Amino acid sequence: MQTLQVDLGERSYPIMIGAQLIDQGELLARHIRGKQVAIVTNDTVAPLYLERLSRSLGEFKLTPIVLPDGEAQKNWQTLQLIFDALLSARHDRNTTIVALGGGVIGDMAGFAAASYQRGVDFIQVPTTLLSQVDSSVGGKTGINHPLGKNMIGAFYQPQAVLIDTSTLVTLPSRELSAGLAEVIKYGLICDEPFLGWLEENVDRLRALDQVALTEAIKRSCEAKAKVVGADEREAGIRATLNLGHTFGHAIETHQGYGVWLHGEAVSAGTVMALEMSSRLGWISAAERDRAVRLLSRAGLPVVPPVDMNAEDFLKHMAVDKKVLNGQLRLVLLKRLGEAVVTGDFPREVLEATLSVNYDALTQ
Amino acid sequence: MQTLQVDLGERSYPIMIGAQLIDQGELLARHIRGKQVAIVTNDTVAPLYLERLSRSLGEFKLTPIVLPDGEAQKNWQTLQLIFDALLSARHDRNTTIVALGGGVIGDMAGFAAASYQRGVDFIQVPTTLLSQVDSSVGGKTGINHPLGKNMIGAFYQPQAVLIDTSTLVTLPSRELSAGLAEVIKYGLICDEPFLGWLEENVDRLRALDQVALTEAIKRSCEAKAKVVGADEREAGIRATLNLGHTFGHAIETHQGYGVWLHGEAVSAGTVMALEMSSRLGWISAAERDRAVRLLSRAGLPVVPPVDMNAEDFLKHMAVDKKVLNGQLRLVLLKRLGEAVVTGDFPREVLEATLSVNYDALTQ
Repeated sequence: MQTLQVDLGERSYPIMIGAQLIDQGELLARHIRGKQVAIVTNDTVAPLYLERLSRSLGEFKLTPIVLPDGEAQKNWQTLQLIFDALLSARHDRNTTIVALGGGVIGDMAGFAAASYQRGVDFIQVPTTLLSQVDSSVGGKTGINHPLGKNMIGAFYQPQAVLIDTSTLVTLPSRELSAGLAEVIKYGLICDEPFLGWLEENVDRLRALDQVALTEAIKRSCEAKAKVVGADEREAGIRATLNLGHTFGHAIETHQGYGVWLHGEAVSAGTVMALEMSSRLGWISAAERDRAVRLLSRAGLPVVPPVDMNAEDFLKHMAVDKKVLNGQLRLVLLKRLGEAVVTGDFPREVLEATLSVNYDALTQ
Repeated sequence: MQTLQVDLGERSYPIMIGAQLIDQGELLARHIRGKQVAIVTNDTVAPLYLERLSRSLGEFKLTPIVLPDGEAQKNWQTLQLIFDALLSARHDRNTTIVALGGGVIGDMAGFAAASYQRGVDFIQVPTTLLSQVDSSVGGKTGINHPLGKNMIGAFYQPQAVLIDTSTLVTLPSRELSAGLAEVIKYGLICDEPFLGWLEENVDRLRALDQVALTEAIKRSCEAKAKVVGADEREAGIRATLNLGHTFGHAIETHQGYGVWLHGEAVSAGTVMALEMSSRLGWISAAERDRAVRLLSRAGLPVVPPVDMNAEDFLKHMAVDKKVLNGQLRLVLLKRLGEAVVTGDFPREVLEATLSVNYDALTQ
């Protein structure tokens, strides 16, 4: 087992990574201070792992909360099911909420933990590659609003994150690829040598080689933990983690939640950010193409939806959280391995980027 | 103008107290960092003060959000109206939410600020005595759930609190009395000399003497700021602020929100806490009667609802946030001016307290 420490002062917490950790109850028990535990999961993950996790936590008074699966469920109505179950089972302030599932479960269970009785303990057991390398690290929790993604939420840190790499064997390959979009992102924004490692290992990752997966997850969590530790509340450098996300959120909003996977939208969005960085003269066309090729080899889309034009993108990007005083700020690359957050670009370059024929570009 | 500082490290903030402060826009402007401001108020307060406050904040891009009045509105559906309005008017992360109204508005606007885009700035302009001395100080925000009061929320500190004492001239006298319940509470839990001052000044307070009101508000805020500063997240001493609240919440839940005012329920609940403290031999019957008399002179009920029996109380108290690992903890008085939070009492004493004939006791 590998353990990383996310350093946030009194809100620091460990990330444990390894195979079959879900069966090692003592790893979780040492982070649980009360007698009550609620396991929040969904109807896809529950048949696979709920019984095993419940057995590991046999010493506690358990309340399983099984939600319907899907990004479309990341709303107030589903969140309310968590509160209903906690109150009906009389969970008090000393309860611990354990999130067992992907990013949607982690975001909702985390926001429920942040809000239930104004804050209770929270542990993440992410079971998708995306949530293991992204949403389980850094304390972002929340739900969607009909007018925008992740608009309601809290920054709330877990007591611990337990990553069982062997849960990935039940993950659909499309979702594995979506997770790889975020893994590749870490290379692009802050770790150029990792890009080289990924180029050598991307086929092994897609074939679920456990050694390669463990290394990729560990390196991704290290990158994210370092960035989050330096900037917990997203005042500055943390925003670079959103490479591809402003374009990607526009895609998700336009298509309706759940049509494109988050990582797929981020991948196409990353291609747009690469193209814009290239148009600004910050990276070369060859560097852009190198990154596009890696995303493509990871099984990811590298072209935005055919039915979206520049107008559609601008409309959805105007309510993005990175809009400051009306000025649009984007995460772009100064070079491979170095991202910046900037609003300092000619509007024409953005509009040109939104109007590129990506099919032609990426062939 | 009087100014107190609530000392919470990087989350410290000032409380400004004085007459006609609502017209002094610069007092608020110095705590607003963006260009957008949303004023959250209700349809009772809006006709009285919204125009004046809007004029004071004329330099900002304002979004007024007028909610229906009442504790029954302190729910997700009404909170959602705030998010809808913020997103429709494209408020970004640099926005400031100003709460103009009583405790319900402050709690909802505060939770909206804590949750909107995972946290935006927040300023309180409380217009009821209760919210001026209680809910605007200390960072508690939240909404009710059908199964319990204040069950969903956050600890979230404002940038500043502006208390305009002259807004109390439009407050119904029943609500003024409800505010006095909390004022008297500060004397009971931590400031015995203040009890003497209140006995001399309670009639002046009810007659809206501005000098007396200013003094009472200032002293109450000091008491609360001191307690909150020592214990922001309610691990220990802060819980003493809930004197009368466990019994009081049971009354509010049983009667349905909005039938009894919060301060009225706290007053009757405080009488029950006094009676229990007396039964435990911690205060004398004379001290109990002295406090009951002061509550009564403040225009407050000192007897729980006739239709509630001991069973009703126990049922509602079992989901109170102060239940730890199944053990009920109560705020009781060791003496006038010193409260403790304790679960260390014979259950029979609690049951006897719940079965007292309070009509006879308080005559």
